[in-house]
Amino acid sequence: MNKLLIVGTVAFDEIETPFGKTDKILGGAATYIGLSASHFNIKSAIVSVVGNDFPQEHLDLLNSRNIDTTGIEVVKEGKTFFWSGRYHNDLNSRDTLDTQLNVLADFNPIVPEDFKESDVVMLGNLHPNIQIKVLDQLTAKPKLIVLDTMNFWMNCALDELKEVLKRIDVITINDEEARQLSGEYSLVKAAEVIHTMGPKYVVIKKGEHGALLFEDKDVFFAPALPLKEVFDPTGAGDTFAGGFTGYLTQSSNVSFRNMKNAIIYGSNLASFCVEEFGTSRMEKLNDKEVVGRLQQFKMLTQFDIELKQ
Amino acid sequence: MNKLLIVGTVAFDEIETPFGKTDKILGGAATYIGLSASHFNIKSAIVSVVGNDFPQEHLDLLNSRNIDTTGIEVVKEGKTFFWSGRYHNDLNSRDTLDTQLNVLADFNPIVPEDFKESDVVMLGNLHPNIQIKVLDQLTAKPKLIVLDTMNFWMNCALDELKEVLKRIDVITINDEEARQLSGEYSLVKAAEVIHTMGPKYVVIKKGEHGALLFEDKDVFFAPALPLKEVFDPTGAGDTFAGGFTGYLTQSSNVSFRNMKNAIIYGSNLASFCVEEFGTSRMEKLNDKEVVGRLQQFKMLTQFDIELKQ
Repeated sequence: MNKLLIVGTVAFDEIETPFGKTDKILGGAATYIGLSASHFNIKSAIVSVVGNDFPQEHLDLLNSRNIDTTGIEVVKEGKTFFWSGRYHNDLNSRDTLDTQLNVLADFNPIVPEDFKESDVVMLGNLHPNIQIKVLDQLTAKPKLIVLDTMNFWMNCALDELKEVLKRIDVITINDEEARQLSGEYSLVKAAEVIHTMGPKYVVIKKGEHGALLFEDKDVFFAPALPLKEVFDPTGAGDTFAGGFTGYLTQSSNVSFRNMKNAIIYGSNLASFCVEEFGTSRMEKLNDKEVVGRLQQFKMLTQFDIELKQ
Repeated sequence: MNKLLIVGTVAFDEIETPFGKTDKILGGAATYIGLSASHFNIKSAIVSVVGNDFPQEHLDLLNSRNIDTTGIEVVKEGKTFFWSGRYHNDLNSRDTLDTQLNVLADFNPIVPEDFKESDVVMLGNLHPNIQIKVLDQLTAKPKLIVLDTMNFWMNCALDELKEVLKRIDVITINDEEARQLSGEYSLVKAAEVIHTMGPKYVVIKKGEHGALLFEDKDVFFAPALPLKEVFDPTGAGDTFAGGFTGYLTQSSNVSFRNMKNAIIYGSNLASFCVEEFGTSRMEKLNDKEVVGRLQQFKMLTQFDIELKQ
């Protein structure tokens, strides 16, 4: 079975939306990526760090999805990374209420021996130096390295971010961040600039407005599934990344044409994530539901205009 | 040849964007609809009104595109409808600087005899009472009646708008207007509410974020083509409507499945419209360019995930 190495936060989140408020619940980029990627026939592992306050049941959940958690360090004297935020009424924007780095502050990632030759590596949103440390431990060149990042690192670690960008194949980034990183308002121009920084493929996530995949002059677009209600957007981008990388790990084909399918799988899985608070929808999601909604994606986007060549 | 009846403004526009400023140039919903629909093998006519200040060359342009202009009344003592606006830097929003109704204030639409049995009727954005007057002159039920409207009429003529909504098949409306008309934020819910007001099909235009087509539970989505530069968005929605109705008039098939293709044709034509000020790109556009970009739309949206039934 092909292997996917996932690096990212495993965390506690406290989320407030117009629909309600959670207690401290399971969160973190790597958690969402792992749960999403577990819908594919692959071996995956998470490299992360938690504190002694992190319940065994959460690790059991990940293990039950066939995710190797031996790369999740448990710091005995430490507390797990905590984020809390409040979404505005339109659910498109949010305020961060609290961020406690805790054990993340001194995180030194250790890649399990068994995953040093992974087929695909997903570098979730973290300090670029941590992402680089992971790449330095690999003993074989992966088929594909995918990186997610955010404006925070552009503001405080841009040089380090530019270093890691030279070593990856795909960047996933949201529209505002793509504009910030490139200095271009047009997303087509932004992708052009980001290409020159290293990544052959640029994925720009537009939330409810879908996602774009660029390779040079080629572009592919996947809409977000139009939903009656978005309940909680937390983790949607990471769930997208998990579907994208999970599918590519399984199919072992990193052509642009197959990446289109991966974008659809990612969008499909993300459409479930936002239906309930936190990870709860993803914990229950079954494969029949996944396939059913893929059918909806086909109905949503496919048409039959025949063009004479 | 099948017939398309177009009702809407033929006007002067003065447009300011971050890229520059025009003089008084040719504009108006019916103008854009007509130019766009002229890319199909159909007979079309415009019902509108202009003043004695309207140059013959503009009418000649429409005639050269095989558009019947006998339904464009020329008021000898009047001046043509004038709109001027300034777009903001993101080109997604604009301020209206001036609106002079002029001859539009007393417009009494007269449908040419030859178009009273049109296959498709496109009611461009106008006072709902004018749209109703046009429907009252038809002597045969069209295959399809499409209506475009805007928030202005929701604010000042909502009852009349609701009357005309009962008599049409398709409404095209932008996202904010759909929310205002329905009182629902979610576009899926908004479309449900608008369905109950009459239209079997609801098209929600999201500008650079594409367009959605709803029929009951079925949804189709077409992205806007990602462009390096949007130069002037004026007329994009009308150009979309012209492509949508022009294609449906030509193909004479108003199934949901074929309407998907019509949405793509509309999006395709609109993607040209925004490339230059006013109507100038649409005046030069040739069929080879149209087909070339349709190919781009296929590349942009089509994927090949096979699902077992």
